[in-house]
Amino acid sequence: MTDAATLARMIRAGRGLEPADLVIRDVRRLDIITGEITHTDIAIVADRIVGIHGRYEGKAEIDGAGRFAVPGFIDTHLHIESSLVTPHEFDRCVLPHGVTTVICDPHEIANVLGATGIRYFLDSAERTIMDIRINLSSCVPATPFETAGARLEIDDLLPFADHPKVIGLAEMMNFPGVLNADPAILAKLEAFQHRHLDGHAPLLRGADLNGYLAAGIRTDHEATSAGEAREKLAKGMAILIREGSVSKDLDALAEILDENTSAFVALCTDDRNPLDIAEEGHLDNSIRRLIALGRPVHHVYRAASHSAARIFGLSDRGHVAPGWRADIALLDDLEACRVSGVISGGRPVTDDIWHTRAPVAPVGLQSMKANPVSPSAFITAPNPGHNEVPVIGVKPGLILTYRESAALASDDMGLKPDTEADVIKVAVVERHGINGNIGRAFVKGFGLKRGAIASSVGHDSHNITVIGVTDEDMALAVNRLIEIGGGFAVACEGEILADLALPIAGLMSTEPFEIVTGHLRQLREAAKALGCTLPEPFLQVSFLALPVIPHLKMTDRGLFDVDAFDFVR
Amino acid sequence: MTDAATLARMIRAGRGLEPADLVIRDVRRLDIITGEITHTDIAIVADRIVGIHGRYEGKAEIDGAGRFAVPGFIDTHLHIESSLVTPHEFDRCVLPHGVTTVICDPHEIANVLGATGIRYFLDSAERTIMDIRINLSSCVPATPFETAGARLEIDDLLPFADHPKVIGLAEMMNFPGVLNADPAILAKLEAFQHRHLDGHAPLLRGADLNGYLAAGIRTDHEATSAGEAREKLAKGMAILIREGSVSKDLDALAEILDENTSAFVALCTDDRNPLDIAEEGHLDNSIRRLIALGRPVHHVYRAASHSAARIFGLSDRGHVAPGWRADIALLDDLEACRVSGVISGGRPVTDDIWHTRAPVAPVGLQSMKANPVSPSAFITAPNPGHNEVPVIGVKPGLILTYRESAALASDDMGLKPDTEADVIKVAVVERHGINGNIGRAFVKGFGLKRGAIASSVGHDSHNITVIGVTDEDMALAVNRLIEIGGGFAVACEGEILADLALPIAGLMSTEPFEIVTGHLRQLREAAKALGCTLPEPFLQVSFLALPVIPHLKMTDRGLFDVDAFDFVR
Repeated sequence: MTDAATLARMIRAGRGLEPADLVIRDVRRLDIITGEITHTDIAIVADRIVGIHGRYEGKAEIDGAGRFAVPGFIDTHLHIESSLVTPHEFDRCVLPHGVTTVICDPHEIANVLGATGIRYFLDSAERTIMDIRINLSSCVPATPFETAGARLEIDDLLPFADHPKVIGLAEMMNFPGVLNADPAILAKLEAFQHRHLDGHAPLLRGADLNGYLAAGIRTDHEATSAGEAREKLAKGMAILIREGSVSKDLDALAEILDENTSAFVALCTDDRNPLDIAEEGHLDNSIRRLIALGRPVHHVYRAASHSAARIFGLSDRGHVAPGWRADIALLDDLEACRVSGVISGGRPVTDDIWHTRAPVAPVGLQSMKANPVSPSAFITAPNPGHNEVPVIGVKPGLILTYRESAALASDDMGLKPDTEADVIKVAVVERHGINGNIGRAFVKGFGLKRGAIASSVGHDSHNITVIGVTDEDMALAVNRLIEIGGGFAVACEGEILADLALPIAGLMSTEPFEIVTGHLRQLREAAKALGCTLPEPFLQVSFLALPVIPHLKMTDRGLFDVDAFDFVR
Repeated sequence: MTDAATLARMIRAGRGLEPADLVIRDVRRLDIITGEITHTDIAIVADRIVGIHGRYEGKAEIDGAGRFAVPGFIDTHLHIESSLVTPHEFDRCVLPHGVTTVICDPHEIANVLGATGIRYFLDSAERTIMDIRINLSSCVPATPFETAGARLEIDDLLPFADHPKVIGLAEMMNFPGVLNADPAILAKLEAFQHRHLDGHAPLLRGADLNGYLAAGIRTDHEATSAGEAREKLAKGMAILIREGSVSKDLDALAEILDENTSAFVALCTDDRNPLDIAEEGHLDNSIRRLIALGRPVHHVYRAASHSAARIFGLSDRGHVAPGWRADIALLDDLEACRVSGVISGGRPVTDDIWHTRAPVAPVGLQSMKANPVSPSAFITAPNPGHNEVPVIGVKPGLILTYRESAALASDDMGLKPDTEADVIKVAVVERHGINGNIGRAFVKGFGLKRGAIASSVGHDSHNITVIGVTDEDMALAVNRLIEIGGGFAVACEGEILADLALPIAGLMSTEPFEIVTGHLRQLREAAKALGCTLPEPFLQVSFLALPVIPHLKMTDRGLFDVDAFDFVR
């Protein structure tokens, strides 16, 4: 809250009657409304811009050196858990890319820890430098077809509804539940009618899309084609162009962003791993690619900031102008979106700033509640009377899977993988200490010739997902995860080639992001050594168990046909 | 609040699985995002659109007959009192023009009755068919240089802050108070930092504009030139293009509305009398004129609806699309904005609808607390040692006045008007029963050759303002107003030629708007018969006492120099 004394200082400093707290001297301000570029100083008092379009004096000053000044970027939908680091580390990793606000859904940790996970994110959000806002996870568990670590009904969410960091209800991914007017879903939609209702409606079109929107849902980050996005726009839905580590929709959707639409389009990453952030960037990467694809520069920057703020009701930000929150990215190059300086809530983002944050104690350190498994746990009996078995088909960079099939040989150890045909085993091991379920099936497309890869990140219930050529290596990888509190592991011929511990709920590391990045590089190399041909093997493993995304998925309860919305019998 | 059962109906009807409550068959929907026009039905359940871009069945149906469907218009800043009728009559008068939401500031009635006036508007707003939203009057009295009927400090406003019809704080017209960080103003700004802060900053530019905006003020309806509006836009301020009965800024500002700016521009009327509404229209008039001036059609309609909603945080409206409030205007002609049907919150606006509204008892029926005056009350003594007296210069259609002067003859009845030079008397008679003040001076520009015109509408303190050629007619006109509970009167040579009673706080009639319109026509004729050359004599009289608008104004305490912010000595 800005008190009267601070307001008085803001007014006086804006008028130039007293020095501002901070002045960025000599920038080229991009007007996100008109595209005009103006040389100016920017004066800041407390967390607010108080003066532009003129010369100012400050108690502290930064040399803008003619750099471009644009409003800080807003990631409108993401799961911080997918960065594999804590919110504090995410802050340190991503804020320097100019991302001053993120709207996250703690869906992953909530599926493991329930309300404890949401509380952890809210506590973190109160301490980070960037402004982390929360949409409350709407679908925990995502479906009744898997075993999650928690269940959040409307009465579990309501205690968080009035937290100052909470915006509304997060991605309503159970769109069949909406369409069928499921009472538990309706109860959540009803309670949040006057708040933001975030959507998630892949491929939903026509009258069913109307029905989904009739519930008051306003945003979508799941459009994967321009045609789908245009229909959603034409029906009043704001489109969040997603460019994550697996789901990459920017190339397909870029064409929808223009002068007409820029108030109705924003950007998001959804799931982005720290390697990609290190190598390509974050929203800065999306911005430079949209510009490279010919989208009008100031409309791209508008979508990345002001439009995002408006769509989500954040009325205090999205302009480099007096009276607006001092979230600013300074760029060496406008078209390449080369960020060289960031101001977050009036504070220059320097190496010193991270120490000023109060720490938050990690949670969920005992979340791997599965018992160690033996290789025989992965024996898959043939289905008498069926020559072929259904196989999950995986394609690089798609979390959508395909339904394929294969004729597999079997012996007294059950059905055997066929590495020639690129068909190997997949299993999901329940790890929340609830029922010890193990679901088993086959998957195609990883390229693995030997060994196994296991992950305790397994959207959305985050059981252990493991793929492999031998039962022994599958058991070894799974048991390693149980031992280290969750994470990723690559096993081959009785040895662990690489791993990464993610002891916070089996989802996030307690280490700095640079360390995590190093582990990920080793893990990628190890997967490649097994013959893996996918550029993102761990993300693709982790999405094999997501039964809200078509077409064929694996849960701890068995192989699931998303289109039929039922298990494969 | 939309309950779960209604949500279920909305979803099912949107999917086409059950009939909607209402279907408008066969319209041409204008997409305010892209400009595309699509033939479709519109399905509505309760107050919400649930289906477009398809065929629907409804329990009730309206033949759209190929008319254009656009989102209902939003008047972003107005004083309903200036329509001279009650909110209920305003509703009946203006809603058929397609204006489904108005954001009003009950500033006029608040200056007479204080909190009672605000409560009257809130009670009315809960009963009208159109959605009346309230910004709480920030400046009552507008200045310390006049005698108002009430004073509203922050503690008087706070009890209304959480009323569901309240948006934020209304036009902060005391911009010198903001710039000087006046503690009472800061207290109001502080309390509403997280709400909408509406601006009013005529001619404010440069660093002073920065200082004003630094307080968090977001909108302005007082820009009168494109240059001023462009500077305000470039500093993050949304521009509300005003076209009232006196203040007409549309021609000057039209050029600022384009593809780049339409998300940051909205429309308003501020003060519009029922004659103009009858003869020209309301926001429909603004829309057709902007289009005629070459502004892009769908961006004009966007500014009039969706942009207005976004700027003021009304996130439920501004699209003809599923999930959005069913506020729709049906147009016979898109470019001429010829409205032939209106849906307001899902209800077709028909002649029958007005009877469904619960009435609201009038307030302020005893607000004319001045004692009758004698002609001698208007004797104006010469100022010894000055040959010339300062004179308020009036120009048609401007509430800005100019400082002029005249050499006037005097006798034992004081200074004498000079009708040859078009210089006549003006006086303001305090009427709130507080001190009986009478301020006296001279005015030029009305063209009056005889008689007098009096008004109890006198912005913003609403004392009685009277102009006239003879003291006798001035007294007669003033006393008539005291007798009829306030209003307008034209007197000539001992006779009342025309009048209109405005017994609600001396500002609003209890009659239907058609009756009020008839009186206004008679009053205009009567003023013309006195020689008056101004097209809007009553509005111009009523703005003579507004000391927040430059340059020279008249209050009950004397002649006021707005630029010097002090009385003329």
